[in-house]
Amino acid sequence: MSAGDAPYGLIELAAIAIEGDQIAWVGPASAVPGDFGDWPRDDLGGRLVTPGLIDCHTHLVFGGNRAREFEMRLNGASYEEVARAGGGIVSTVSDTRTASLETLIAQALPRLDALTAEGVTTVEVKSGYGLDRETELNMLRAARALQRVRPVTIKTSFLGAHATPPEYKSREDAYIDEVCIPTLRAAGDEGLVDAVDGFCENIAFDTDQIDRVFRVAAELGLPVKLHAEQLSHLGGTQLATRYNALSADHLEYATEADARAMAASGTVAVILPGAFYTLREVQQPPIEAFRAHHVPMALASDCNPGSSPLTSLLLTMNMGCTLFRMTPEEALAGVTCNAAQALGLPDRGRIAPGLRADLAVWDVETPAELSYRIGFNPLHARILAGRP
Amino acid sequence: MSAGDAPYGLIELAAIAIEGDQIAWVGPASAVPGDFGDWPRDDLGGRLVTPGLIDCHTHLVFGGNRAREFEMRLNGASYEEVARAGGGIVSTVSDTRTASLETLIAQALPRLDALTAEGVTTVEVKSGYGLDRETELNMLRAARALQRVRPVTIKTSFLGAHATPPEYKSREDAYIDEVCIPTLRAAGDEGLVDAVDGFCENIAFDTDQIDRVFRVAAELGLPVKLHAEQLSHLGGTQLATRYNALSADHLEYATEADARAMAASGTVAVILPGAFYTLREVQQPPIEAFRAHHVPMALASDCNPGSSPLTSLLLTMNMGCTLFRMTPEEALAGVTCNAAQALGLPDRGRIAPGLRADLAVWDVETPAELSYRIGFNPLHARILAGRP
Ligand SMILES: [Zn+2]
Ligand SMILES: [Zn+2]
Repeated sequence: MSAGDAPYGLIELAAIAIEGDQIAWVGPASAVPGDFGDWPRDDLGGRLVTPGLIDCHTHLVFGGNRAREFEMRLNGASYEEVARAGGGIVSTVSDTRTASLETLIAQALPRLDALTAEGVTTVEVKSGYGLDRETELNMLRAARALQRVRPVTIKTSFLGAHATPPEYKSREDAYIDEVCIPTLRAAGDEGLVDAVDGFCENIAFDTDQIDRVFRVAAELGLPVKLHAEQLSHLGGTQLATRYNALSADHLEYATEADARAMAASGTVAVILPGAFYTLREVQQPPIEAFRAHHVPMALASDCNPGSSPLTSLLLTMNMGCTLFRMTPEEALAGVTCNAAQALGLPDRGRIAPGLRADLAVWDVETPAELSYRIGFNPLHARILAGRP
Repeated sequence: MSAGDAPYGLIELAAIAIEGDQIAWVGPASAVPGDFGDWPRDDLGGRLVTPGLIDCHTHLVFGGNRAREFEMRLNGASYEEVARAGGGIVSTVSDTRTASLETLIAQALPRLDALTAEGVTTVEVKSGYGLDRETELNMLRAARALQRVRPVTIKTSFLGAHATPPEYKSREDAYIDEVCIPTLRAAGDEGLVDAVDGFCENIAFDTDQIDRVFRVAAELGLPVKLHAEQLSHLGGTQLATRYNALSADHLEYATEADARAMAASGTVAVILPGAFYTLREVQQPPIEAFRAHHVPMALASDCNPGSSPLTSLLLTMNMGCTLFRMTPEEALAGVTCNAAQALGLPDRGRIAPGLRADLAVWDVETPAELSYRIGFNPLHARILAGRP
């Protein structure tokens, strides 16, 4: 995934030298420097090696699931009937609040295992289903704990500004000031926050409310990212770029002006086809504008119990190609180098000397096969920080 | 999946008695008959047990893949440019003709393994990429061989009337009479054919040509099924019902009159959302009409290298719900009892005394979870003919 003449930066008949947890050298096998001549070798049999995949936008930690609501809707229940039966995000908030830390971890693990089984080595996890101080902290603690029980890197995003909890209904400003911001400070104090996120939408928070949260993030020295322009154009993307956001995510209703602003601020466009598919949206994100203005595009699962109960990054790549006409090369960049940029991680996402040796080895003939197949996992091996 | 008061025919706290390869008894664990009192027991820990899944429409055996063409299209190549580069079904025909029997088997196995890893116990496999006598026979031999190397039941369909090979370009009638029908007879003689299929479409064969093939099928005592009304309404469904076809498949352009005819002839509607998704179609199959006229609906992967490189029946279920608004209960019936009917297999697809003990055991709380999740495999165990 490094720039070069060949598509994908692909090197045929390549060799990779790994020292400790880092890549020491990469190039044609015929040109391995003499220094590495007597190192132990592992023949990968001509398979494809890519950077370990990175899922840069997930809500992997939550309580319960929403299969019942999914079924009710398909059986013809109205939005109101689902709500009366306790459905919607409120049900996930309730299930998350009543879950212990151990339960949150245990329920997230099968989802995490599904991702890593497809070569994922770094996963971003957001809070946002607690919406009270203790549960938001618990979600982030659970996220941090995942990398102690599984070989994976977890990056956390504080998403207190995800929704207004029932006890603050129609009092969004009070929720932001009384709960969200104090909880962000507490989470920062506990070292639980790698980035600060928000949901800027008619059904969530407006740009003024998000701005207040981002000001605290800036004060704490934390980078920001934002769910923006998913269901309408509210101006969240432009706000995010004023904070040099790592990423703006969803972006179905983003404009060319938004793309221009993102290019200027170095903000990654995180495309989330799983939610588009599940919600049967028709408004497509402006892929052409992102291309034209050289905005890096990432692809992520958006794994969450409501709008994207998706735990396959390979399927996400196929959806990016099939639904949004991204190319397979853009799809692979979207789950490697550009996903790394969306998380502020310059040490991974490409295969280059000095970077972390996070690699995925695939039983495919061409990189395009990773996007082409649907519901198939050709992973041969996964290497995390130099260790299989 | 047996009719009953509870949705899905679900029995809470159930027990299943298996004798040899058959189900001997099923009912509440509290009511296990005394005869079974001292049989060895296997506690499934409160998990969900369903019939083994059945994928009743696949093109699982073929040579090569079409990732290059997928990538060309997404990079903006026109249909003509893809064709000039050797793409399209012609490329699969060419790769299938040059593949040995062993290669066809070896290349199909990872696809088959992906299906069975999700609890599939019976798979239909079609010919139709040979389009000459020897390769059509080879494809069917490869399909039969799969069940000798893997624990699975394979049912074959002869699909000589899939496309016109290059050497018969614009001479469809001659292809049907000189190649397709003689090859069908040869395949029948060799015991390679469980059903006879065709592709009735503007880009393939018209109803007269399919009728000639079906007449031979009837003469040989073989049931028929048909790819019908996928891209236009050509009348294939009505033709198929006149032969009491096991199934009519795709059906995006089928009408209410077609649904009525299918109900009368006992023909299953096989819904194939993977092709609809991949081809970005917008015309939806008439699910409401099938419901209204009590046409059994099945769901299948349509696994093939061009329009549906899909090897997940669970994802197919999710697509049936998400794209076509089928209910999770319809989706599960679509890959169990109705899929069995589409293959003419009354001995499976439900959990009932006397039926084959083909079962799938799932780590889920409700059957709806099988359709709700995307890209997640909760299979705990798979039992084929009574054997784990
Ligand atoms: Zn999200
Ligand atoms: Zn087909």
